Amino acid sequence: MLNLGNKENELLNLDLDNKGVNNLRGIALDMIANSLSGDGGIALGTAEIIYTLFKYHMNIDLDNLDFINRDRFILSIGHAAPLLYGIDYFLDLLTIDDLKNLKRIGSKIPLVEFSGGLFGQGIGTSVGVALSREYLNKKTNGLLDYYTYVLCGDGELEEGITYEALSLAGTWNLNKLIILLDSNEVTLDNSLKTTTIEDIQKRFESINFNVIEIESNIKNINDAIISAKNSSRPTIIVVKTKIGYSSNYERSNLLHNKILTNEEILEIKEKLGLLPSNFTVNKDVIEDFRNKVLERGKVVSLSFQKKYQKLEDKTFIDKLINHENTFSLKNLEIDYNEKDLRDLSQEILNYISLNFDLLIGGSTDLSSSCKTYLNNYELFSNSNQLGRNIAFGIREEASGAIINGMALLGFRPFVSTFLAFSDYMRPSIRESAMMNLGVFYIFTHDSVLVEEGEILHKPIEQLPSLELIPNLKVYRPFDLNELIGCYIEIFKNNSPSCLILPKDNKNISLNTKSSGVELGIYEVLKNETEDYINLISNGEELEIVLNVAKNLKEIGIDSKVFSVPCKKNIDNLSLLNGKKTIAITLSSPEYFYDLTQNVIGISTFGELGTKEELLEYFGFTEQVLQSKILELLNK
Amino acid sequence: MLNLGNKENELLNLDLDNKGVNNLRGIALDMIANSLSGDGGIALGTAEIIYTLFKYHMNIDLDNLDFINRDRFILSIGHAAPLLYGIDYFLDLLTIDDLKNLKRIGSKIPLVEFSGGLFGQGIGTSVGVALSREYLNKKTNGLLDYYTYVLCGDGELEEGITYEALSLAGTWNLNKLIILLDSNEVTLDNSLKTTTIEDIQKRFESINFNVIEIESNIKNINDAIISAKNSSRPTIIVVKTKIGYSSNYERSNLLHNKILTNEEILEIKEKLGLLPSNFTVNKDVIEDFRNKVLERGKVVSLSFQKKYQKLEDKTFIDKLINHENTFSLKNLEIDYNEKDLRDLSQEILNYISLNFDLLIGGSTDLSSSCKTYLNNYELFSNSNQLGRNIAFGIREEASGAIINGMALLGFRPFVSTFLAFSDYMRPSIRESAMMNLGVFYIFTHDSVLVEEGEILHKPIEQLPSLELIPNLKVYRPFDLNELIGCYIEIFKNNSPSCLILPKDNKNISLNTKSSGVELGIYEVLKNETEDYINLISNGEELEIVLNVAKNLKEIGIDSKVFSVPCKKNIDNLSLLNGKKTIAITLSSPEYFYDLTQNVIGISTFGELGTKEELLEYFGFTEQVLQSKILELLNK
Repeated sequence: MLNLGNKENELLNLDLDNKGVNNLRGIALDMIANSLSGDGGIALGTAEIIYTLFKYHMNIDLDNLDFINRDRFILSIGHAAPLLYGIDYFLDLLTIDDLKNLKRIGSKIPLVEFSGGLFGQGIGTSVGVALSREYLNKKTNGLLDYYTYVLCGDGELEEGITYEALSLAGTWNLNKLIILLDSNEVTLDNSLKTTTIEDIQKRFESINFNVIEIESNIKNINDAIISAKNSSRPTIIVVKTKIGYSSNYERSNLLHNKILTNEEILEIKEKLGLLPSNFTVNKDVIEDFRNKVLERGKVVSLSFQKKYQKLEDKTFIDKLINHENTFSLKNLEIDYNEKDLRDLSQEILNYISLNFDLLIGGSTDLSSSCKTYLNNYELFSNSNQLGRNIAFGIREEASGAIINGMALLGFRPFVSTFLAFSDYMRPSIRESAMMNLGVFYIFTHDSVLVEEGEILHKPIEQLPSLELIPNLKVYRPFDLNELIGCYIEIFKNNSPSCLILPKDNKNISLNTKSSGVELGIYEVLKNETEDYINLISNGEELEIVLNVAKNLKEIGIDSKVFSVPCKKNIDNLSLLNGKKTIAITLSSPEYFYDLTQNVIGISTFGELGTKEELLEYFGFTEQVLQSKILELLNK
Repeated sequence: MLNLGNKENELLNLDLDNKGVNNLRGIALDMIANSLSGDGGIALGTAEIIYTLFKYHMNIDLDNLDFINRDRFILSIGHAAPLLYGIDYFLDLLTIDDLKNLKRIGSKIPLVEFSGGLFGQGIGTSVGVALSREYLNKKTNGLLDYYTYVLCGDGELEEGITYEALSLAGTWNLNKLIILLDSNEVTLDNSLKTTTIEDIQKRFESINFNVIEIESNIKNINDAIISAKNSSRPTIIVVKTKIGYSSNYERSNLLHNKILTNEEILEIKEKLGLLPSNFTVNKDVIEDFRNKVLERGKVVSLSFQKKYQKLEDKTFIDKLINHENTFSLKNLEIDYNEKDLRDLSQEILNYISLNFDLLIGGSTDLSSSCKTYLNNYELFSNSNQLGRNIAFGIREEASGAIINGMALLGFRPFVSTFLAFSDYMRPSIRESAMMNLGVFYIFTHDSVLVEEGEILHKPIEQLPSLELIPNLKVYRPFDLNELIGCYIEIFKNNSPSCLILPKDNKNISLNTKSSGVELGIYEVLKNETEDYINLISNGEELEIVLNVAKNLKEIGIDSKVFSVPCKKNIDNLSLLNGKKTIAITLSSPEYFYDLTQNVIGISTFGELGTKEELLEYFGFTEQVLQSKILELLNK
């Protein structure tokens, strides 16, 4: 392997660069003072890392920020954002006016690959970005060969999701993943050692990482990145920084989220040799900075174009570049034949996998139970980067963040587990929803009727609770017809979805239809009389409701029955025609209160027992349901 | 330190014990076959661990299973439960008939300290139990000196929460915590090495653990436990087991959750030298087993009684033994003086801490922001076990599980963080709720009006989503009067609660009252006319609603305004008097749909901006709210 160390180091201009870093510190402080929000300690302590990375390593094309082979930079510690905005200014991607108006409604910022927020999510996401790189690199014969850089904090490494995700990075040996750790040894409340005695070297060696520890300065950071780029293993560069560098709060936790006074800022600027005026930078600094990035980007972009032209089959890469990541299921044919919904779902998934090569996904050790294995493909591994089945292990949290990272690259990734375990994924699902990523989650074993497992394996509040997440579409089909409709919708839209399946429902109905999913709510039992009630339900329990409707007819009560395969698709409720409406669900009644005040649901935890015992216990036998409905009608 | 190794080993009766382990395997298989649910692989592979632990080490008092100084055993892998039930049978705590009827509705099982379900929760909980032991040991001058044993799986150690919790165990040096790792190297989908290459020795050394690795047999396990008991650090015993031992599925993942056929069970029983008949054990085995446990328990119980009698001040320990863990706030006096709710909350917490010594808690690195530090006490640490402030670090998941463990010991523990981060705690909160533990969570920064931070720091769906969890009471006070009411309720009931606070609301109203919290909903603006509407709200936005009510009155619309400080306390809605009712919330509208179909809420993610900009953006200015209300009235 070529050692670029000496050559690249020759290019460093330490006098200019130290001035540049101080310039970056200065405008970051100005931004924070101006918006009254931000972390001055990080701005002062972390500037060298971001500066060196962007000036000497990040391959980006300033004429095409969407350049598909750009290096990815994931800012996992959002409070370092002013530094990234400063880089944007250095690169002429933002103006001083923009900097003054950041943190305002709707502000969009160049070079931000990922909208963080919850600690640890950026690290999880970066593992998905780095995994994608391995797959894409093989798939395109080396055409795609970007690096994934992530800047994280040492407090952040206390988050469980970071262990989960990085353990996978080590297992898959994602050696183009480079973590820059801002090791300032201070968290908001305390010094870091108050809450952790972890030996970082051993921690990362235990999961197959290359560990480089350095004091923070431009040369060290540059050398470490060069070495990391050539590593045969994923790398963490532990950069020993001084939070609040040059301020009176140096190395203390007191500057975290504190806004410095004007006097304090002036004092710091003087110490750093900066002009006192706000938002002032040295022209030679930013010219040199921008030129370096621009020139490197041109070389990389040109080299990519050349390789691209030589590529024989451009189908796949063109799809990625043009974001063609929807898929039509119009030719799908499925043999029903008494299979349960999980098996049918697997057949559809397998059909899609053969016809749409952006589908890739896996399970948190439940692929055999959730039925989500892609049978025509192998497991992704450190020796088989074209595997399209991802074994995440029992790491729910990381799995969600990792598929978010894959979606950022253009895949339509999925992960499966039991519905009750979705609680562990909630922070990542929220990220999917906020970034509106084309991921989907398959959650099976969706009600208290599941016979196996512990009480905590039985979902009650998970369905309405997922439904609450903005942007997220939650699908709960009753039968094959609706299941197909769900998959059509999921692959028609490039947005986050959950598909909720029962453990073993085998029903199929003549009255259901795939197109009902797009409507959100539709009639599955018609009624021609004038005087009737509406019954609303979905999923497995719709079968019971249909039977109850039959029984009610026998005692003279007519009803229409509606299925609700996707609540967020509901446009209006005029089809309820103002009639008395009763909703029935095996989950919390809150699930349906937006549709009607009359809901029969379950507000307690699950129980152990056989399906029959559980139906009895929760009052979901036909008889009990009927009497509850009659009670509500007489209210 | 006394080495008990040789002495205790002399007591082993390996012939009898090997027969005993096989007996345990046999009845565990019978239980699984009988209930058609369970994990035969674990039953066969893990029996030696549980058998040896209970027969030779666990100190329990068979005449008083609630014995406060008993050793605690946390079964973190629920699928090993049939083995624990088998031990119950060996100890005459369950009958054969009980064993045949396990996994049925409402079944209660002796020796179960903890109801697991989600992987990793047991480990987190055990750290709370072990932390409590350190505190209690100091507090009672050594009277309480139990061990905490936890049995976990190697797949389970992939869960992020296990890293978080065990890192704290190492930091706090909880050396009476002993983890028994069932290292079978197989998970449900794959062999373990498919999903992890982690070096377990290095992983645990990096967090200050004593690591012992052994092949599974009774003598090795016994020796390892003896050594662990004498360790100056927390210990993990890596027991190399053979999942599915003696079956045709030995060391394969195929037996996980598979039910063996009768023929297969008979074959195994023959191999193990067992009688073919179901639920049959050797009398000498269980007699010897029970006698050992009984005698040891008597000695321990007697020694405890002696020490207890000598204890001068029994107040604290008696409170624990008698579960006196509620507290009245009748003497509370708080000086309002324009403080915001977070500050007032801290004053109340501090008042309680001085008068109720079962209060102990901390924050996930946000005690300074959430205002939850107990000023008269120090940090809990490996050198200060009487510290009542717990610095959990940035480990939301573990914090919840750890306070669950402390509540199991009788504490009233709490943890604080921002409301948006509660997503990370959801699995532990669900555990709190399912076990009905007296923990409470303090979640601040409770709406999109928070100016700082990223979009993901701004809660939208968290409030209704927590409200969905069965058993969990969610309190959201408007002002000091209601805040006091919330604390009164939290400490009156020994059950799980969330206290939701704004970032900086300073309002106080003459019309609010503490007793309103118990009612759940109550009037804060009266109206004497006949024709009026109801307006419902809570928390910070109630202030805006009160202003809107004033404005409405000016244009001739009378209204009553209701505060809802605790939804789950609402008994009935007759006080709404059948009038048109409109609810207003800064969270998802689903939060109030059970009370009325007319809800004004927010169904999108937060945004960045100043408080004024955000009120404008989300339509929560008085003017816009008024016009939305008028629109709903005309509907």
